[in-house]
Amino acid sequence: MGGDHGPGEIIPAAESALKRHRDLHLILVGIEPELEKYLSGFASTISSRIEIQHASQVVEMHESPSQALRTKKDSSMRVAIEMVKQGRAQACVSAGNTGALMATARYLLKMLPCIDRPAICTALPRIKGHCRILDLGANVDSSSEQLFQFAVMGSELTSAVDEVESPSVALLNIGEEEIKGNDQVKQAASILANSHLNYVGFAEGNDIYTGNIDVIVCDGFAGNVALKASEGVAQLFRHHVEAGFRKSLYGRIAGLVALPVLRSLKHRIDPRQYNGASLLGLKGIVIKSHGSADRVSFATAINEAITEVAHNIPERISHKLEELLTERQVI
Amino acid sequence: MGGDHGPGEIIPAAESALKRHRDLHLILVGIEPELEKYLSGFASTISSRIEIQHASQVVEMHESPSQALRTKKDSSMRVAIEMVKQGRAQACVSAGNTGALMATARYLLKMLPCIDRPAICTALPRIKGHCRILDLGANVDSSSEQLFQFAVMGSELTSAVDEVESPSVALLNIGEEEIKGNDQVKQAASILANSHLNYVGFAEGNDIYTGNIDVIVCDGFAGNVALKASEGVAQLFRHHVEAGFRKSLYGRIAGLVALPVLRSLKHRIDPRQYNGASLLGLKGIVIKSHGSADRVSFATAINEAITEVAHNIPERISHKLEELLTERQVI
Repeated sequence: MGGDHGPGEIIPAAESALKRHRDLHLILVGIEPELEKYLSGFASTISSRIEIQHASQVVEMHESPSQALRTKKDSSMRVAIEMVKQGRAQACVSAGNTGALMATARYLLKMLPCIDRPAICTALPRIKGHCRILDLGANVDSSSEQLFQFAVMGSELTSAVDEVESPSVALLNIGEEEIKGNDQVKQAASILANSHLNYVGFAEGNDIYTGNIDVIVCDGFAGNVALKASEGVAQLFRHHVEAGFRKSLYGRIAGLVALPVLRSLKHRIDPRQYNGASLLGLKGIVIKSHGSADRVSFATAINEAITEVAHNIPERISHKLEELLTERQVI
Repeated sequence: MGGDHGPGEIIPAAESALKRHRDLHLILVGIEPELEKYLSGFASTISSRIEIQHASQVVEMHESPSQALRTKKDSSMRVAIEMVKQGRAQACVSAGNTGALMATARYLLKMLPCIDRPAICTALPRIKGHCRILDLGANVDSSSEQLFQFAVMGSELTSAVDEVESPSVALLNIGEEEIKGNDQVKQAASILANSHLNYVGFAEGNDIYTGNIDVIVCDGFAGNVALKASEGVAQLFRHHVEAGFRKSLYGRIAGLVALPVLRSLKHRIDPRQYNGASLLGLKGIVIKSHGSADRVSFATAINEAITEVAHNIPERISHKLEELLTERQVI
C-alpha cells in the first residue's frame, strides 16, 4: 500500500467507500501486521467486507518500471494486480509509482486485442461539466493508429461512466486549422473523421477547461505537459490568493469575509473530485490515484473503480474497437 | 496593422511607448488614411517621432502562411518586416497571424548562421520572478540539435534582458528521472549536459510556474499545449471567482470587500505584463503580440522590442552559438 501517505489516508478512504457501497468488498494489500492495526475500531458491518492480503515489498517512487518488475515480485502493487488477473478482485486501485504500476499491469494483465498500448485517462473540470483527456503520460510518442485507439477508449469510458450517448471527441493540437500539427495528429484526424465516433476536430489546450468537448485525445507527452502545467497555474493562483489575504490587516479581514465564497470556489474546482486516472486498454481495471491523495481523493479513486467495474469498461472498449475496425475494413 | 482590435488599441500603445522612451521612433505600418485619423490630437513631441508607412493589404487571422506569402505582398506585416530587412527599422512588433508572421520573417530576414528554425519565446510568471519558455509553437517537431539551439537562444535572451549572468536552463519532460522522455529530449539532455550552458536537467509542466528555472526548452507542440492549457485554467478560475462573488447578496458584498486583494492578485499575474513573444533565431528582431492585446499589453510588446534592440539579441545569440559549437568541436 503506497502513495505519499500510505495506509493512514488509504484505510479511512476504504472505510468511507465501504460505508457508501453496501455490496463492496475490499482487499487491502500490504504489510499485514501494519494494516491490521488500522482495522481494530471498525464496525463488523465494515470489517466483514475487508480482507487483508499480505505483500512484503513496496515499490519506491523513484524506482524504474523495469527495476520494479525484476526485483519487486512481492510488492503490494504487483500482488494487487495479480489478484485482478486471477479474478479474485475486479479492479486494482493504487497511489504508487505510475510507471511501475503501468508496466506491471501491462505485464500481468496484457493488452486488449487490437490495442497496442495502455493510456492514462482522467477527468478535468470544464466551466460546465468535465472533460476526459488521454493519454497523460503512459506513452511518449503515439502513432496515428494509437491515437485512434485512445479516442475509442476515451469515448467508451465517457459514454458508460458519464452516460453521454455519443461523446464528442477532439484531437489536441496547436491550432484549430487543418494544416496545423504533426503528421501523427493529421493522420489520426483523417482516421477519426472517417469513423463513426463523434469526432469534432482539433482542440487547443484551453479547450480542456473552457470548451464543451467530452474527450480530448493526445500523446502522453503533450497530455502530461498539459496536466502538469495546469497544476502549476493552480498552485501559482493559490499562492497569490493566500499571500494577498495574509498581507495586511485589511487583507486578513477581507479574507474572512470572502472565505465562504472562496471555499465554494475551491470545492468547485477541487482536484480531489477528479482523482483516479484510468489505465485503459488493459484486460482488467486499474485505477491510479495521485500519490499525494488524501482520504477524500482516494475514496474518489475507489469510486471510479467501482463505476468502471459496473460498466465492464475493458469489454466495452474491446467490442467498440472491434466494431469500428470491422467498419473500416468494410469501407 | 492587425490584431483583434487594430489601430484603436495599437496607436494608444504606441503613444504611451513614445512618452516613456524619449529617443524612440515608431513607424506605423498600415492603411495610411486610416492611421492618420488617429494621430491628429498628438502633441508635436510625440507626432514628430511617428512615421506612417502605407501598406494596402491585411493578412487575415485564418490565412495560411503560404497563402499570405504568396498573395499578400503589400500586407502591413510584410512591409514592416521588409523595413527591418532594409535597416529602416530595428524591430517589428505585430499582433497579427502568428504563422504568417513567422513565415514572412523567416523568408525575408533569414535565419542566423547555424540555427535551423526560429522559435517563439515568452516569459511566464513564476511564484517568484518569471521563467522564459520556448518554443511555443513555431515548430511541431524538434530534433535534439534544434532543442539545443533553442536553449542557447533562450539563455542568451534571458542573460541580456533579465540581467541573469548564467541563466538556469531545463528541458521540459514528463518526469524528472533520466530514463523518461522521448529520444529527442534525452539526446538534447546529453548535448546540454556537455555544454557550458547552465543546464539543470529536466523540468515538468508545473515547474514553469512554481520552480526557479530561468529558461525551459521544449518543442513547439508541447510548449503551445502548456501555454494554452494554462490560459484555460486561468479562464476557469476567473469564471468561478466572478460567478462566486455574483451568486448571492453575501457574495456580492464579500466581493466588494475582497476587491482590493483580488485586484492586486490580478495585477501580479496579469498576462498583459507578459505580452510580447520573441521570434528568436532570425537575423532581425520580431515581436509577436497576442492577437487580443489591448493598449497596455501592446505597449509591453513594444517595450520587449526596445529591450531586445538595446541588447542586440540576434548578434548575441549568434556569437554564443558559435562559441558553444566551437567548444564542442574542440572537445
